[in-house]
Amino acid sequence: MKLKFTKMHGAGNDFIVVDAIHQDVDLTAEQWRKLADRRFGIGADQILVVERPVTEGVDFRYRIFNNDGGEVEQCGNGARAFARFVSDKGLSKENSIRVETMKGIIAPRLESDGSVTVDMGAPRLEPGEVPFDSAGLEGRTEGADTNWPLTVGGQTVFVSVVSMGNPHAVQVVENVDSAPVGETGPLIEHHPRFPQRVNAGFMQVLGRNHVKLRVFERGAGETLACGTGACAAVVAGIRRGLLDSPVRVSARGGELSIAWAGPGEPVYLSGPAVTVFEGEVEV
Amino acid sequence: MKLKFTKMHGAGNDFIVVDAIHQDVDLTAEQWRKLADRRFGIGADQILVVERPVTEGVDFRYRIFNNDGGEVEQCGNGARAFARFVSDKGLSKENSIRVETMKGIIAPRLESDGSVTVDMGAPRLEPGEVPFDSAGLEGRTEGADTNWPLTVGGQTVFVSVVSMGNPHAVQVVENVDSAPVGETGPLIEHHPRFPQRVNAGFMQVLGRNHVKLRVFERGAGETLACGTGACAAVVAGIRRGLLDSPVRVSARGGELSIAWAGPGEPVYLSGPAVTVFEGEVEV
Repeated sequence: MKLKFTKMHGAGNDFIVVDAIHQDVDLTAEQWRKLADRRFGIGADQILVVERPVTEGVDFRYRIFNNDGGEVEQCGNGARAFARFVSDKGLSKENSIRVETMKGIIAPRLESDGSVTVDMGAPRLEPGEVPFDSAGLEGRTEGADTNWPLTVGGQTVFVSVVSMGNPHAVQVVENVDSAPVGETGPLIEHHPRFPQRVNAGFMQVLGRNHVKLRVFERGAGETLACGTGACAAVVAGIRRGLLDSPVRVSARGGELSIAWAGPGEPVYLSGPAVTVFEGEVEV
Repeated sequence: MKLKFTKMHGAGNDFIVVDAIHQDVDLTAEQWRKLADRRFGIGADQILVVERPVTEGVDFRYRIFNNDGGEVEQCGNGARAFARFVSDKGLSKENSIRVETMKGIIAPRLESDGSVTVDMGAPRLEPGEVPFDSAGLEGRTEGADTNWPLTVGGQTVFVSVVSMGNPHAVQVVENVDSAPVGETGPLIEHHPRFPQRVNAGFMQVLGRNHVKLRVFERGAGETLACGTGACAAVVAGIRRGLLDSPVRVSARGGELSIAWAGPGEPVYLSGPAVTVFEGEVEV
């Protein structure tokens, strides 16, 4: 079977985007994994699949597969690529699009400068919602559930836990370039207090409106820029009193901008989404 | 400008193949580098460009760019992908194709089982031909220029030097899986005795007709399978009396087979070449 696809990236986080409205797409996890392989397949952090909506009143359904073949909830950079894709392909003529994902409805907006702003929904901050098992933990910062001690590799790190539809554990570091992302990241990802595993963020505060961020993504390893990771980091930084909205996030793959008015309010993520090439692959 | 391309691999060594006969292709090193980038471009170890021949009596000219954008001599896995490409695209109806490269004419042959055999030419074994500066070195194995001492990172390793159109330094190791390819490879690549740098091979002898190989490629880092590296390793092993032709080479990306009748004779490399997908990219 031939599958048409588009290769895109958002700040270096890269995606295979597949139109499953105009072609039949029914692949196994193993087939997705192989497509995401950078030598034997097309290569990508994630695969985004555009489907007809199931729910009434939305324009599309949007499914996301990690490069290990597993289906995941959502990724902010992917949502931007998704919006740019449905616009460029003429699947939607709207500047604002309503999309259902595994974890709820999102509404990306195409800006006149070519960037895309995504309403990422309100962050969920209760540990059980992340989910994070906080049973018996002490040492929380007064007034904010933002400083959980976590033992990884014999050391204690302090993390804020935030769900942006997917779980994040964010820690503040002095120097993000020298932070042990490759070593500590997998240990946090698989820490038993995160029953659905977790994305591990490492944030350096450069000013009240600017951070530098690296994220070890669940099932994908370190990526150049994780959209939901940027949202979670800024939410954590604002709650800890370190940041003021809006916040520029410098990731290795590019620049994102995050705005958040506070608990209960949605997080807005703006950034680029670029088409690299069009292709057709035998699956 | 839109550029059509085919993504292929040969035993996990992956290639962007471009027909420069039916489309104008005149890119800078920076453009090649960007196309080979795995997130912001298409992603590949090398880019293979199919051109009309310059010399009479050959079918094609074939140029090779590494993923750092620089033009290089040749790669055996690439030659197989090249032959499969010109056959699949109907550019040649012959089973045997004559191709000029920067370093001479090669003649890949399409086998009925889908694999491709490449006459890689005779290896050049004199140090000055590799090129390798052997001035003042002692400790050569009696009767064979195959055991040069090289100081890297404060240690002495012994290498055979072989040119397969490009320079190789091959060492025999006890266990190739634990060999320090990522650490020693770059030190050998940039060793001052190799004025054009060198590809560093690490070979474990499993039997007289079977080796396991890893190669740190010049300008590319460790790749899953290097065709000329497999040739150079088997030539070195036969000259050192460790191997008999033909030799199966188990690389991380797949299996190759190498045949060599001895000094002055060509090396034949057989292995797979697979098309992964077709694409079109804006450059």
